[in-house]
Amino acid sequence: MVKVGIVGGTGYTGVELLRLLANHPRARVEVITSRSEEGIPVADMFPNLRGHYDLAFTVPDVDRLAACDVVFFATPHGVAMSMAPELIERGVRIIDLGADFRIKDIELWEKWYNLEHTCPDLVQKAVYGLPEVNREAIREGQLIGCAGCYPTAVQLGFRPLLENGLIDHRRLIADCKSGVTGAGRGANVAMLQAESSESVKAYGIPGHRHLPEIKQGLSGMAGRPVGLTFAPHLMPMIRGIHATLYSVLKDPVAPDLQRLFEEFYRDEPFVDVMPAGSHPETRSVKGSNMCRISVHQPQGEDTLVVLSAIDNLVKGASGQAVQVMNIMFDLPETTGLEQVAMMP
Amino acid sequence: MVKVGIVGGTGYTGVELLRLLANHPRARVEVITSRSEEGIPVADMFPNLRGHYDLAFTVPDVDRLAACDVVFFATPHGVAMSMAPELIERGVRIIDLGADFRIKDIELWEKWYNLEHTCPDLVQKAVYGLPEVNREAIREGQLIGCAGCYPTAVQLGFRPLLENGLIDHRRLIADCKSGVTGAGRGANVAMLQAESSESVKAYGIPGHRHLPEIKQGLSGMAGRPVGLTFAPHLMPMIRGIHATLYSVLKDPVAPDLQRLFEEFYRDEPFVDVMPAGSHPETRSVKGSNMCRISVHQPQGEDTLVVLSAIDNLVKGASGQAVQVMNIMFDLPETTGLEQVAMMP
Amino acid sequence: MVKVGIVGGTGYTGVELLRLLANHPRARVEVITSRSEEGIPVADMFPNLRGHYDLAFTVPDVDRLAACDVVFFATPHGVAMSMAPELIERGVRIIDLGADFRIKDIELWEKWYNLEHTCPDLVQKAVYGLPEVNREAIREGQLIGCAGCYPTAVQLGFRPLLENGLIDHRRLIADCKSGVTGAGRGANVAMLQAESSESVKAYGIPGHRHLPEIKQGLSGMAGRPVGLTFAPHLMPMIRGIHATLYSVLKDPVAPDLQRLFEEFYRDEPFVDVMPAGSHPETRSVKGSNMCRISVHQPQGEDTLVVLSAIDNLVKGASGQAVQVMNIMFDLPETTGLEQVAMMP
Amino acid sequence: MVKVGIVGGTGYTGVELLRLLANHPRARVEVITSRSEEGIPVADMFPNLRGHYDLAFTVPDVDRLAACDVVFFATPHGVAMSMAPELIERGVRIIDLGADFRIKDIELWEKWYNLEHTCPDLVQKAVYGLPEVNREAIREGQLIGCAGCYPTAVQLGFRPLLENGLIDHRRLIADCKSGVTGAGRGANVAMLQAESSESVKAYGIPGHRHLPEIKQGLSGMAGRPVGLTFAPHLMPMIRGIHATLYSVLKDPVAPDLQRLFEEFYRDEPFVDVMPAGSHPETRSVKGSNMCRISVHQPQGEDTLVVLSAIDNLVKGASGQAVQVMNIMFDLPETTGLEQVAMMP
Repeated sequence: MVKVGIVGGTGYTGVELLRLLANHPRARVEVITSRSEEGIPVADMFPNLRGHYDLAFTVPDVDRLAACDVVFFATPHGVAMSMAPELIERGVRIIDLGADFRIKDIELWEKWYNLEHTCPDLVQKAVYGLPEVNREAIREGQLIGCAGCYPTAVQLGFRPLLENGLIDHRRLIADCKSGVTGAGRGANVAMLQAESSESVKAYGIPGHRHLPEIKQGLSGMAGRPVGLTFAPHLMPMIRGIHATLYSVLKDPVAPDLQRLFEEFYRDEPFVDVMPAGSHPETRSVKGSNMCRISVHQPQGEDTLVVLSAIDNLVKGASGQAVQVMNIMFDLPETTGLEQVAMMP
Repeated sequence: MVKVGIVGGTGYTGVELLRLLANHPRARVEVITSRSEEGIPVADMFPNLRGHYDLAFTVPDVDRLAACDVVFFATPHGVAMSMAPELIERGVRIIDLGADFRIKDIELWEKWYNLEHTCPDLVQKAVYGLPEVNREAIREGQLIGCAGCYPTAVQLGFRPLLENGLIDHRRLIADCKSGVTGAGRGANVAMLQAESSESVKAYGIPGHRHLPEIKQGLSGMAGRPVGLTFAPHLMPMIRGIHATLYSVLKDPVAPDLQRLFEEFYRDEPFVDVMPAGSHPETRSVKGSNMCRISVHQPQGEDTLVVLSAIDNLVKGASGQAVQVMNIMFDLPETTGLEQVAMMP
Repeated sequence: MVKVGIVGGTGYTGVELLRLLANHPRARVEVITSRSEEGIPVADMFPNLRGHYDLAFTVPDVDRLAACDVVFFATPHGVAMSMAPELIERGVRIIDLGADFRIKDIELWEKWYNLEHTCPDLVQKAVYGLPEVNREAIREGQLIGCAGCYPTAVQLGFRPLLENGLIDHRRLIADCKSGVTGAGRGANVAMLQAESSESVKAYGIPGHRHLPEIKQGLSGMAGRPVGLTFAPHLMPMIRGIHATLYSVLKDPVAPDLQRLFEEFYRDEPFVDVMPAGSHPETRSVKGSNMCRISVHQPQGEDTLVVLSAIDNLVKGASGQAVQVMNIMFDLPETTGLEQVAMMP
Repeated sequence: MVKVGIVGGTGYTGVELLRLLANHPRARVEVITSRSEEGIPVADMFPNLRGHYDLAFTVPDVDRLAACDVVFFATPHGVAMSMAPELIERGVRIIDLGADFRIKDIELWEKWYNLEHTCPDLVQKAVYGLPEVNREAIREGQLIGCAGCYPTAVQLGFRPLLENGLIDHRRLIADCKSGVTGAGRGANVAMLQAESSESVKAYGIPGHRHLPEIKQGLSGMAGRPVGLTFAPHLMPMIRGIHATLYSVLKDPVAPDLQRLFEEFYRDEPFVDVMPAGSHPETRSVKGSNMCRISVHQPQGEDTLVVLSAIDNLVKGASGQAVQVMNIMFDLPETTGLEQVAMMP
């Protein structure tokens, strides 16, 4: 049984970790921390957990966390880097759902997150937690910086094209649509139902923190720096990310893209290449760890359109973190992640 | 392994059965029927099932169904009664999610469903499928008419009061709120998102088919015919039923109702009596088989208010049917039903 | 042209006043105040107002407000009572959308609002702003405490029955459903879309601030203190209140209730008695000042069900305030309030 | 007073025409037709119209329509072309909200609509009803084929760039998001709230009927055939279209785009160029005829992003049709279209 600690369990990725781990047959949550909710049972804050957990929030304590096999950080950026060095030294493995260990270029990270990084050396040792790309490194890693939600949907969609050198890497466009849980559980007027429902808007068009993370990942796939326009949009729904990815074929005589995608992802348990002509709906992955993808070449022109759908809280966060944990602890990768998406 | 057949798998209770049974460790769906979708893989119609089922819809065939241990009917009323006699004769056990076998008074059934009942004798042998009330009879039953969605929420809420003789049985009020899946998956202008979302309405105030079913159940608990006003309302959400139940204390010096409810349901795996002062949210049971209940005596007056929340597709339909199946086949009652509700 | 001042224009009732007054042919907003947003154009905060207003928020200033003919308070309770005495003295007329001047029993008010009332004398002079009940007093009033949202829907629904002495006044039940704007525009985790959408819950069952206001109004209609159980529920939609009202006929031989309601409200421009058998939808009044009502006697029993639907921000707040203003300034009562509800 | 006839008043653009014309001071609806609803008062079908219209649906009759000054067709494609020739001959002016008269290339139209066009000569005389582009032709026109919803949002967004020759016309991308009313009011399982809410999907990526219409319009602006990838997406909301438009600057040293857009649309009553850095929300135009636009050059790269938001039922359909009528009848263009968007 893997002993699990969770730092920062009061946000949406925290409660989603608890939901997924409640029925995980090989892991058990031993500690969950929250400064503000000390002593409160998790099931008081999240009544869906009633009957599933007796656990209460405790103040973060390194000794208690160090007794775990793995510690998940479900915290805003800046928190994981403040606690990671001591835990790493004590041999604990860390899975950070936040952004502290995703970007290798420290200066770039500091610019986008407007914060000094306090353990740049650990960043270099950290493994980027996107299992489809980094499975082997994750297996051996002690510190994983899990891929973000938008970055997961975008990278999985572009990857077969970039790794096969089929598209112009200088002009990639990712038009992304996210449900409101992407904004977190903070009290925020803009995310009130009366404000965000029944409306659609873009945000962060001039620049968004996921841009450098995505560019880093795509550049790795392309073997050189890519050009990317990233346009996130807020959707009036709770969960889900839909990425609509545009790129231009280098050679107008393209290979059979459907077959290429299917073969590329044939062995991936959590990437589902849909039949030709499909349009994945985000609800088809709601609550599940699946990423569903389809590829189109509209009107036979040279602009390709890849559609990629995930649940931002599962494959885009907590499910991916559990998948990473399974890999790290040599468990079957799908353990505890076999939920069928809830539809309707 | 319990061999399962499903008749009518294209509606919401059908796909929900498939979702729940996909990970049931002791049951396997062998046959699923739909005249209109013959030959179509279930995962083509419901993409959330991709990777979980290879099964395709077949035309209903008694021989194939008779090879199953149990057949679920997830069909509109009238279908189950047309096939039940032959299956019963061949020894199959039947769990009807529809209304054909719920009401003992045939004349009453025929009046409300505007249809002649074709096997009234089977109705008398059928067991009403509300496990909290009828567990032992279900265990031995061959034909179960599962409780409806509204009836489940209302009966579980009123039951401790009625069985303890605490309230005036002549003036019960059930103000019920249901998500749109309660209306089924038929093409229907009134249920288009553009029509039903962002609005609330009552419907069926003059009379609704669940009225006689609820009255039958409550009358059984009270030991005499009850008077009930039942007011269903359509809620702009996908899943969930919230019943707000009003009744009048017979004796103004009431017992400790909180304690009474807690003790009454102490051993029930799927009834959760919330702490005093609570207001259960339907989202706290979304996707789970739980019924959450709280009891209030506002302002110390003699009108009681019981709040009861279920997921209409789980405890109100397919989850309850699986719970019934578990009981019938001597499996632990919670087998395959331990999902944590999805929140948010 | 009526010169209008608005105190507290950053909440939902404030922006709704601005929307309604933008096209009012006989009134013009001259001042709008907000301490926190001083200097910000209203159209920067509410982009729907772009092109309709040049106005910017200013710090509340009695001299500027006193230059108006009428001042609306769209503020939390406690604000209006702090500014009203000085404005009243300077001859300004006041329309308070909040709760400071609604309840005549000061002690009761102080208990429910947990605050000392600073101008109890003004409360006695204030007129309760429900035009259908108090039209003449409003016409002459200097200080109007507008009826709240739930109280408007409930009182208009029960009124024909109570004033005609048809129902048992001791056992009234109001099961009310409100959209999320009823909770205001404050940053509040419980009202995030990720929390409040796709779910239904009751709240305030033990006691809610609108209870004493409604009881006061209904008792006035009944000519004696009524007994009322008031159960508010939160609906996953932006706007709308639906009140489902239960009462018991005194005499089982009831008069023709449909006709009684139609005649009772025949001359009211903003009360629409729907045809017999109807179920008003809240969307049928979205954005309009109408209250739609229907009356039912289910199954011919003696429990009556009245359904009453309003837009909580219009007839339940800002539209009602404009209607009150029209009456006070001898304008046709429907001036500026003839919008057709937006449907779909 | 302009005498108005409406053919096909039972869909969403029909009821929206009725909503807008109810308070239009210079036009009155005299006839509204529907074969299926003959004799039914419009206010029975759409209760928001109660008190605003006495009108009932009648069977389409050329004589009655010919007595009108203008006839709106709010019908599926194919209907307007079947009735237009006779009405045109009798001197009636026609505003078609459908697609019959939008596309000049008959062969292209027939391919996309899979129908033979029965009056190709009228197509050549018809004026494309996008007032910002075609105001003078509309004024004189007898037959107007109003611009579609997606085409309006996309054309208004790209126009300042194309007419100024600033962008590469061969690689335009329009990623468009539409509310569910865009799919019409037909009974359709895919548009049930239980199916379309809480989810996002693309559709019609291989090809969508609005593609040729948009290309025709953009090509006119560019002065040569453009290349366009058009990707429509279904949003879980009732109203609104958000177009996210991508294009590549020809010259990396761009002019001041903000100023260029502001000057371009300075005199347009229904195009609002938002301040630099803005992200228009669809709710800011809900129920209004406004198109709000912002222009971005993310990260100073050469890919531009234009954001364009309209209400698909107003500026994308019925409001635009009323604007067209105002122009045709020499009324001030904003007559009856001054509604403030409903927000929240």
